[in-house]
Amino acid sequence: MPASYAYLGPEGTFTEVALRTLPEAATRELIPYVSVQSALDAVRVGEAEAAFVPIENSVEGGITTTLDELVAGAPLMIYREVLLSITFALLVRPGTKLTDIKTVSAHPAAQPQVRNWLKTHLPDAHWESAASNADAARLVQEGQYDAAFAGEFAAARYGLQALETGIHDAENAQTRFVLVGRPARPAAPTGADKTSVVLWQRDDHPGGLRDLLGEFATRGINLMLLQSRPTGAGIGNYCFCIDAEGHITDRRVAEALMGLKRICREVRFLGSYPRAGKEPADLRAPLTGTSDEEFMAASDWVARCQDGRF
Amino acid sequence: MPASYAYLGPEGTFTEVALRTLPEAATRELIPYVSVQSALDAVRVGEAEAAFVPIENSVEGGITTTLDELVAGAPLMIYREVLLSITFALLVRPGTKLTDIKTVSAHPAAQPQVRNWLKTHLPDAHWESAASNADAARLVQEGQYDAAFAGEFAAARYGLQALETGIHDAENAQTRFVLVGRPARPAAPTGADKTSVVLWQRDDHPGGLRDLLGEFATRGINLMLLQSRPTGAGIGNYCFCIDAEGHITDRRVAEALMGLKRICREVRFLGSYPRAGKEPADLRAPLTGTSDEEFMAASDWVARCQDGRF
Repeated sequence: MPASYAYLGPEGTFTEVALRTLPEAATRELIPYVSVQSALDAVRVGEAEAAFVPIENSVEGGITTTLDELVAGAPLMIYREVLLSITFALLVRPGTKLTDIKTVSAHPAAQPQVRNWLKTHLPDAHWESAASNADAARLVQEGQYDAAFAGEFAAARYGLQALETGIHDAENAQTRFVLVGRPARPAAPTGADKTSVVLWQRDDHPGGLRDLLGEFATRGINLMLLQSRPTGAGIGNYCFCIDAEGHITDRRVAEALMGLKRICREVRFLGSYPRAGKEPADLRAPLTGTSDEEFMAASDWVARCQDGRF
Repeated sequence: MPASYAYLGPEGTFTEVALRTLPEAATRELIPYVSVQSALDAVRVGEAEAAFVPIENSVEGGITTTLDELVAGAPLMIYREVLLSITFALLVRPGTKLTDIKTVSAHPAAQPQVRNWLKTHLPDAHWESAASNADAARLVQEGQYDAAFAGEFAAARYGLQALETGIHDAENAQTRFVLVGRPARPAAPTGADKTSVVLWQRDDHPGGLRDLLGEFATRGINLMLLQSRPTGAGIGNYCFCIDAEGHITDRRVAEALMGLKRICREVRFLGSYPRAGKEPADLRAPLTGTSDEEFMAASDWVARCQDGRF
């Protein structure tokens, strides 16, 4: 097996920075690919041992390109995840002042994270999307745009200067990345693990999705992600990408997956792996919303909605 | 109240075509806006009576810009929805042949719908994203790109020619649009209605989301959309945009909303309105997945996953 990891390139992006936080990355050749699809294909055809790609961010939610690639095609498995805090720097050619900036560029995913900053500091700047933040930096270096939003680490590589750092609209802006390989026996549980699956309902009926989630809830398993993705069979037809706390060798997780296998049309196992970052405690909360006051307040509220006064 | 509808412009896009299918559009001035955000803001500040924007498509799922705008800010209400089948034409300057095309352009949302077609017919063409499909057509007219993917109806407006029509990767590619206004008493039920809400969980615990969905399921209400959106409080923090069958004046829907109001931290009512298109029958399906054979098959499957043979 080739000792190389494919990753979403180009070099000098947050993806590369996140990948280098993995100890195993030090012993592999790291090869940038132009898209999530091509990086995962490299794994599928055996060109690379694994691929490292973004899968979720705290501003935009699940990264649909990656989810859609994992949902379809030859099965792949998630081995690891990495959480990285994302703040942007405004990179310019040396000497450029804020008032000189007429055009700014970055990957489209950066836009919601810098939107408010732009509105305040550069309300008249024209936005041009680039294939990646590093690409935007390169285009600034070449003189095509005046400024790029990218990681501060990209400044040196492209001979640029950070006019501003620490730009992020949302506090705790983070991106989650995963290391994806071919199916194999999942690594042993660490005690703080996560299991990813994709579920397709057998048919569409009242309570269908509730029943699926019940397989987790009944066994006290917390969910960390539920992202619906179109199946391609028309509006309203979705499959569900789910991350649940626990490892497939935990009894409760294995039981939940067996329950799902029985009631779903299809279940795709995407792996059990150590979870990154702090996660909520795995405890049942007391029942809420059952007092007389809460019943009355809710009833009043619906009456107001029915009357258009909400 | 101004008798005008704002819509996601520019003119000559699928949004305008969908808007014109509404009888009430004929008696209003239709004003294009540059973004979903600005169209909805026009309603919020009273510049327009309502705004018409895309909200879901069968290839990409929920349109996150629109959902995020409805989730936050001053409350708005959905009055109507329209389903439009989407197929693209490849528009070129008269005389251009397929072999002449080096660059193609369209809105980024078009890309997944034309990706396979491009791979087969123009594998070497360079993709350049445009602000809208109509904008891409304009840039072809001006000579900046060789071809644009847009609705066939855009050809005449920009003096272009449709080299190919009916391009769509997924069968039944549809986009759903909504007409959004300020809160008011919802129109009377038609017998085939839909209710949209946004739910914020009170806390994160096992079964939390299952309990929310249980409020619908217990009352036999089918869900037509469940889209998670980040709350901005960091990775793993989501609210849920839900479309359910029925009208807020239906007893079962009113009861479900009261139940949600009691157990959620917050519920935002987004309206009850006639549903477009054919929807699945509102009937409970028989239980499936309960036979001995299905238990054994599921148990075998988990054993194979635990062993890495899936």
